[in-house]
Amino acid sequence: MHKIALIGAGRIGRIHARNAALHPGLHLAGIVDPMEASAQSLAQEWNSSVISLDQALSDDSIDGVIIASSTDTHLDYSLRAAAAGKAIFCEKPIDQDLARAKSAAGQLSDARLLLAFNRRFDPNFQALKQRLDSGVVGTLESLQITSNDPSPPPPSYVAVSGGLFKDMAIHDFDMARWLLGEEVVEVFAAGSCLVDPEIGKLGDVDTARTLLRTASGRLCVIANSRRSGFGYDQRIEAYASAGMVRADNVTESTVQVWGENGAAADKFQNFFLDRYAEAYRREMDHFVDILEGGKPSVGYADGVAALALAEAAAESVVVGKAVKL
Amino acid sequence: MHKIALIGAGRIGRIHARNAALHPGLHLAGIVDPMEASAQSLAQEWNSSVISLDQALSDDSIDGVIIASSTDTHLDYSLRAAAAGKAIFCEKPIDQDLARAKSAAGQLSDARLLLAFNRRFDPNFQALKQRLDSGVVGTLESLQITSNDPSPPPPSYVAVSGGLFKDMAIHDFDMARWLLGEEVVEVFAAGSCLVDPEIGKLGDVDTARTLLRTASGRLCVIANSRRSGFGYDQRIEAYASAGMVRADNVTESTVQVWGENGAAADKFQNFFLDRYAEAYRREMDHFVDILEGGKPSVGYADGVAALALAEAAAESVVVGKAVKL
Amino acid sequence: MHKIALIGAGRIGRIHARNAALHPGLHLAGIVDPMEASAQSLAQEWNSSVISLDQALSDDSIDGVIIASSTDTHLDYSLRAAAAGKAIFCEKPIDQDLARAKSAAGQLSDARLLLAFNRRFDPNFQALKQRLDSGVVGTLESLQITSNDPSPPPPSYVAVSGGLFKDMAIHDFDMARWLLGEEVVEVFAAGSCLVDPEIGKLGDVDTARTLLRTASGRLCVIANSRRSGFGYDQRIEAYASAGMVRADNVTESTVQVWGENGAAADKFQNFFLDRYAEAYRREMDHFVDILEGGKPSVGYADGVAALALAEAAAESVVVGKAVKL
Amino acid sequence: MHKIALIGAGRIGRIHARNAALHPGLHLAGIVDPMEASAQSLAQEWNSSVISLDQALSDDSIDGVIIASSTDTHLDYSLRAAAAGKAIFCEKPIDQDLARAKSAAGQLSDARLLLAFNRRFDPNFQALKQRLDSGVVGTLESLQITSNDPSPPPPSYVAVSGGLFKDMAIHDFDMARWLLGEEVVEVFAAGSCLVDPEIGKLGDVDTARTLLRTASGRLCVIANSRRSGFGYDQRIEAYASAGMVRADNVTESTVQVWGENGAAADKFQNFFLDRYAEAYRREMDHFVDILEGGKPSVGYADGVAALALAEAAAESVVVGKAVKL
Repeated sequence: MHKIALIGAGRIGRIHARNAALHPGLHLAGIVDPMEASAQSLAQEWNSSVISLDQALSDDSIDGVIIASSTDTHLDYSLRAAAAGKAIFCEKPIDQDLARAKSAAGQLSDARLLLAFNRRFDPNFQALKQRLDSGVVGTLESLQITSNDPSPPPPSYVAVSGGLFKDMAIHDFDMARWLLGEEVVEVFAAGSCLVDPEIGKLGDVDTARTLLRTASGRLCVIANSRRSGFGYDQRIEAYASAGMVRADNVTESTVQVWGENGAAADKFQNFFLDRYAEAYRREMDHFVDILEGGKPSVGYADGVAALALAEAAAESVVVGKAVKL
Repeated sequence: MHKIALIGAGRIGRIHARNAALHPGLHLAGIVDPMEASAQSLAQEWNSSVISLDQALSDDSIDGVIIASSTDTHLDYSLRAAAAGKAIFCEKPIDQDLARAKSAAGQLSDARLLLAFNRRFDPNFQALKQRLDSGVVGTLESLQITSNDPSPPPPSYVAVSGGLFKDMAIHDFDMARWLLGEEVVEVFAAGSCLVDPEIGKLGDVDTARTLLRTASGRLCVIANSRRSGFGYDQRIEAYASAGMVRADNVTESTVQVWGENGAAADKFQNFFLDRYAEAYRREMDHFVDILEGGKPSVGYADGVAALALAEAAAESVVVGKAVKL
Repeated sequence: MHKIALIGAGRIGRIHARNAALHPGLHLAGIVDPMEASAQSLAQEWNSSVISLDQALSDDSIDGVIIASSTDTHLDYSLRAAAAGKAIFCEKPIDQDLARAKSAAGQLSDARLLLAFNRRFDPNFQALKQRLDSGVVGTLESLQITSNDPSPPPPSYVAVSGGLFKDMAIHDFDMARWLLGEEVVEVFAAGSCLVDPEIGKLGDVDTARTLLRTASGRLCVIANSRRSGFGYDQRIEAYASAGMVRADNVTESTVQVWGENGAAADKFQNFFLDRYAEAYRREMDHFVDILEGGKPSVGYADGVAALALAEAAAESVVVGKAVKL
Repeated sequence: MHKIALIGAGRIGRIHARNAALHPGLHLAGIVDPMEASAQSLAQEWNSSVISLDQALSDDSIDGVIIASSTDTHLDYSLRAAAAGKAIFCEKPIDQDLARAKSAAGQLSDARLLLAFNRRFDPNFQALKQRLDSGVVGTLESLQITSNDPSPPPPSYVAVSGGLFKDMAIHDFDMARWLLGEEVVEVFAAGSCLVDPEIGKLGDVDTARTLLRTASGRLCVIANSRRSGFGYDQRIEAYASAGMVRADNVTESTVQVWGENGAAADKFQNFFLDRYAEAYRREMDHFVDILEGGKPSVGYADGVAALALAEAAAESVVVGKAVKL
């Protein structure tokens, strides 16, 4: 049983609170949030206590912290928690500023820090990677990552999000790095505003295609839209020398209705809370591994690398040519 | 090039006329039909001539006949064509009366007679049989044959059809015999009138389940309804010792529409003209094989055997117990 | 928080222990099992205590009991728990003897007893029922229930199981009753021994097809085999006046491998622990509802009715005709 | 009945010969090919005659010509046939040289010329376009066109092919134009040699991703590889404001084998002769429409436009930036 504290009692914090509280290997000892009421209600729900950040970091019985606070605090809290010797479960992105993130690399690259790219823990994408690694389809040649949200966030969210590439595609850049098996050397991206003109007014795009290339010539396309019209669209196709592996969307059930217009499957799971529920649980399992001495499978350097791809993509949209890394 | 004549210019006759006329190995030399206008228009369409039945049978240059006339003429015309030395392509069923069909067996069992159970020539069911025969799933143990029409025929058709078992399920009895690999020894059937009360008033059922058993204990369920609500429903599942093979319905295209209710496939092909178009062509290919000396893969004895199963099923519905064969 | 006790620390008991222990609405206060070691290890795992049956029934702070002991104790323990005023979560079947089960009906039909037919709580079958009830495909006409185990149990299990119909098909009889919307009036069944000759030596069958009919003529086929060759095969097709609803098997992931032989989906979930994991959780939710005053959605009378169908099916196999109920 | 001549008795010529010969609206009056033996055997097969190109063009009873000769003759023969007043069915590409193709536009843009982009006639892609046009998914926003061959052609073919973009992707550029509903204004492409080093030695790529953008910001990705490892991979996804429409690959049958590794579908159709057999027939139907006064649905200008996209893509690979059109 490892005592941990949760920093941030918002939407994603509540997911991690539940998974930590129900995990046989963890004791959720404290919850930190400047919004007293949020912290209080979450602490009550899971039989925990409201504590301050200082308490969390200075209490030697607390082995680790989950950082689920706002993005602008991720880096600072990670540095403080690392200095305090805590194991760290940090929500993505590590920061919105690549230069700043790079400057902290010396202090955090060897920290016991799990950067919470949840998709690496999705059973479907894990199964896809296992097939690729098994060699059943030969050597990887190219990737198609499709990643569309069900509907656009409000402009107020977009305004502080860091833009589509850093906020949304950052997950896909991490998936690309995880699956490509070698680093990306060149990025080209095109973006449009087709979904919501308000997003365009904020200088952001809502629809994008990004093309990555590795040193050996592997190609990867990332397709993003802020709105799919059919729920959460999270698919990957990995083309290899002897075939292809793909992971599809998840439906709410296996039920089909057959009528005069043909066979209709059930709805796709609508968004990340459903689609990645199991991924969040597995992520917590991995945090327990780290608390017990294991090495993070995805860490600070991965966060920096994904951020670098996001910046390159954003730059490419502006300059209209491929950006070298 | 074999000269043949077509007897019967109705719906199914027109299909065979087209396939014969376009077949490089056949010359459709004449069309016989008491309805002068039908015969005439079909002859014009395919550059053929209207002839009488006697002409068709007495013309030694005509090698074979396609019997696509009304069911009550199948047996008589087959006997006359066999006596005239013609190869015969005879539509199913061979007759509606089992005793009469059996009585002609001596004269027809060795005739060059192809009994046109079209489903044996469907590419999907042929692929299913090929997989079963290959042993990839081990030894067959049981079958599920699903065979539902899109919508019920008019009561006037039902009245002269011979009933659901002889008219509709006869195809499924043949499929069962073809796939089971041994003869059926016991038949139990239950029938209901759920689709159209007019069918019940005629003493027939529109919904039935028939359970067949072979000597070694293989079980086969045949599911029939005169109305599916979603097009032509023609599926088979073959359970074997190491897995299962199944053949599914055919859709009009591979197109799917993904919307807020999930993924919707395209319509199923609506009825036999679409679903079995290729089967009819392959059936004609096989008739050419027979004209060139090949042995019919499905002949008179198969027609009698399927009819025997249909009569047993109809009897079982009345007596409420399994009927031995 | 309701205090409950678990009776039976075997395979299924361990599932319920986990779900009860992790349920926010329950406190797993005690575990009863004649096998001291099993009870002890399960109690430790979930921070509970080993208690005796008498303690469980006499402790007024314990609101309910989960009966997951051997089948021959289900009825006796249910009667004792009902007499003690407990809410009851009883594993299926209620008993192997229909007459005995009927004789206890007076005492148990109104008990707060949840008979644990887990499939009613499967999200896929619940979605199927919801579609049927919504009327989107019109009025139900017939059902196809396919229920095959991955591989046969050892003969030692079969010997005490009560036979395929009472042990395995009992679930399917309950599903049929749940979905048909009216009682079954006639049962015909055919059984064979095709999977394991040892099963036949014990007087049981390993492959069966059962045909049910309701008063209004709805037909239902139940297909059972003790071995599928491809994992747990749990599917339902519900044919109605305007279409069909079906629930399919569940795969381990959405991953497909595309190779020279075509597209291969992932494995099917292998057996009930995987397929019905969520059903077991939902079943526990419903038990909490009952503890809070709700009415059991499936109770003692449902257990008796399913057992009656199982006995009728077994009799039909012997007599070779439909058995009236 | 329109008399037509076929120019070119090679692989694709033989397909068109068959479809023309079997078409009720066409009479295949002559076959032209410098390879006397090829012309002769094809003429015999379809009961036609070998004629010279001059005969074909000067015979006023011949209404149209099918140009299925080598690519370098397409433009010249089209010009001569147009001058002779013939309707023209010309294989793609119109030419390998964009400047030359443009220079002939004045003479050919209004010709009765059908440029044979066969995919426009594929039933699956036609169904996809019909759904898009119907508005059922709202307004188109982006396209994903996946177009991989089963295995690479021999280097000798590649050497004279014009390169991946003009030879293979040209079809996809046409599909993009057909579906996007507005002209492409910008092209970015990345190419690699991953399949066969010999292709790289010839200065060509065998794997490419091309990103197109229209004036309103619609984005289209074209994915190409000379080798899929699983047959012919021809799929399109069209994302729109209220959902997505997609057309999938075609399998050889609907058969599935279910075994211990899960459900395996049948093979995908291996290459264009199978996948586009029906498209070739529909293309011929449309040529008959044109002979009867209809307007070509795809003509010379479409050939030039697709060639322009191919050249831009090839240029983009070299310069590493988006090329404006």
